[in-house]
Amino acid sequence: MSGGNVQVRMKRHPQGMVSPGDFDIVEAALPTLAEGEALVRSRYLSLDPYMRPRMDPLRSYVEPLKLGELMPGAGVGEVVESREPALPRGAIVAGPLGWQTHGVVTRANARVLDPAMGPPSAALGVLGMTGVTAHYGLLKLADPKPGETVVVTAASGAVGSVAGQIAKIKGCRVIGIAGGADKCRYVVDELGFDACVDHRAPDFEQQLAQATPDYVDVLFENVGGPVFDAVLQRIADHARIALCGNISQYNTKEPYGVKGMRQLLMHRVAIHAFVIADHRDYWPTALADLSVWVREGRIRFKEDISVGLRSAPDAFIRMLTGRNFGKQLVQVE
Amino acid sequence: MSGGNVQVRMKRHPQGMVSPGDFDIVEAALPTLAEGEALVRSRYLSLDPYMRPRMDPLRSYVEPLKLGELMPGAGVGEVVESREPALPRGAIVAGPLGWQTHGVVTRANARVLDPAMGPPSAALGVLGMTGVTAHYGLLKLADPKPGETVVVTAASGAVGSVAGQIAKIKGCRVIGIAGGADKCRYVVDELGFDACVDHRAPDFEQQLAQATPDYVDVLFENVGGPVFDAVLQRIADHARIALCGNISQYNTKEPYGVKGMRQLLMHRVAIHAFVIADHRDYWPTALADLSVWVREGRIRFKEDISVGLRSAPDAFIRMLTGRNFGKQLVQVE
Repeated sequence: MSGGNVQVRMKRHPQGMVSPGDFDIVEAALPTLAEGEALVRSRYLSLDPYMRPRMDPLRSYVEPLKLGELMPGAGVGEVVESREPALPRGAIVAGPLGWQTHGVVTRANARVLDPAMGPPSAALGVLGMTGVTAHYGLLKLADPKPGETVVVTAASGAVGSVAGQIAKIKGCRVIGIAGGADKCRYVVDELGFDACVDHRAPDFEQQLAQATPDYVDVLFENVGGPVFDAVLQRIADHARIALCGNISQYNTKEPYGVKGMRQLLMHRVAIHAFVIADHRDYWPTALADLSVWVREGRIRFKEDISVGLRSAPDAFIRMLTGRNFGKQLVQVE
Repeated sequence: MSGGNVQVRMKRHPQGMVSPGDFDIVEAALPTLAEGEALVRSRYLSLDPYMRPRMDPLRSYVEPLKLGELMPGAGVGEVVESREPALPRGAIVAGPLGWQTHGVVTRANARVLDPAMGPPSAALGVLGMTGVTAHYGLLKLADPKPGETVVVTAASGAVGSVAGQIAKIKGCRVIGIAGGADKCRYVVDELGFDACVDHRAPDFEQQLAQATPDYVDVLFENVGGPVFDAVLQRIADHARIALCGNISQYNTKEPYGVKGMRQLLMHRVAIHAFVIADHRDYWPTALADLSVWVREGRIRFKEDISVGLRSAPDAFIRMLTGRNFGKQLVQVE
């Protein structure tokens, strides 16, 4: 395989939960470069929930993946060959490498990483799409005011952990929702949220009510399903919801029916669904803040690293079922 | 009863669909006026869907009605006694008269009607809360652009009919959804919508798909339930939803579960739920437009008038079940 490329492709559309058999791992020739392109040897691949809906053959914001197509995703790695002066050999870059050991990028879709900003893997997390997503959804769409109550679902996850810490920086009371006691402890003890409620607890709704005596002004929503309905029962007048993800529903055949429409109306709630790919202009704004906050230790992050490209399908399934803990990465080599 | 007051009060909280037994009709003494108040003999009472959720003992944007409390509602009538110079005897005023033959208003909550603006009953419809609601939801929140596809549910109803006609004035392609062939014909032939789909038709979803080949950029939503889900299946990228009502769910014990969260996310939809009572400052803006459009014949309206205050409960139930046709009023005397 030395000198070759290894790729993970979608073999079939998942039926409900993703399974390892939905992927093919194949060896392919290294691509030849056109003018303006660079070949990158991947070090880290980012696994993100948004990849799951892309595997369904349904109308969406991008073309759904076709059978046999390379699984998409951001990665970081080293330029090993280049026909683009802005991406010189030896540079460490982040770009849409996909689930493969070697990917081709261009000046338009890749950025050269500044080692002073942090470890390269952070460019796939807090100092990359993950962090920008949290910043945009929370500050641009939901715009919480100091003293307001902010709820973040999937609070220990890659995006949620950053969203909640930004809300703390902005002076909000921040309540996380996460699956399991360990994650909740981490959210409070390590990330500094005011409280965290375990959505697997039998008295989840009551715990959530106790944690939100003044109701919920802002919801940063990553999960959907019954957890979303539970928060709607606690929603405050004129609340804003940044609808970022719906991970509880990505692998269900029959979607959960959200019962809280009445709450939306009675409390005059605004929902802003978004996909960060629409907002490329926003990256510099967000990264400027995030890099400062990370450097000052005001935003902390955790990575969950799976070793070897061939582990990507299993790591992806772990993430989709909430068994990861922190930003999910694959160390490619 | 001459000289007395007749009132319709809420006897009990409805269990599911409102029934006549949920009301008490009682005779009461005429109120004595304080300084700054005027006594109005009601001519027309407005019946509006928002009254239904107020009858439930649940957290809402105003205190729920208490047992034995007067049913609330706007009305128009003549000032028969006054201790407020701005509301002189003989003036025709609109204000929160409630479901009764005589109500007390103040300068702050009533307005003197200008006969040149139209018939007094219009102040309860297109030139009142109904019209202002349509204007605000459509233009301020959803902001449709010329050529965009706008869907209006409850299209023959008081608010929907105005919202759709405003969208036509703004150069949109406007699709109504209504219950029954008669209403759909009216929406197209009389109100000038481009098409109208009967949500009771067995092939409703297919008809809706055919009527929205370019998908749905704006939804003015009054209905909720399965109709809402059907529109979400046709939602366009970056669509805006003005969430004005949820009438299909006001009388159900178990709320319908909305399955289209995926569509919200994949198409980056914004939902703006609103209650026009929050936006009193907006009335002059809206009424300035609406009065011109009505005078020019660009907005048409239909009234469904039930005779006698005692008919109000039945008329209310008719409206909640979609058996009315046009803005529901009660002619009080």
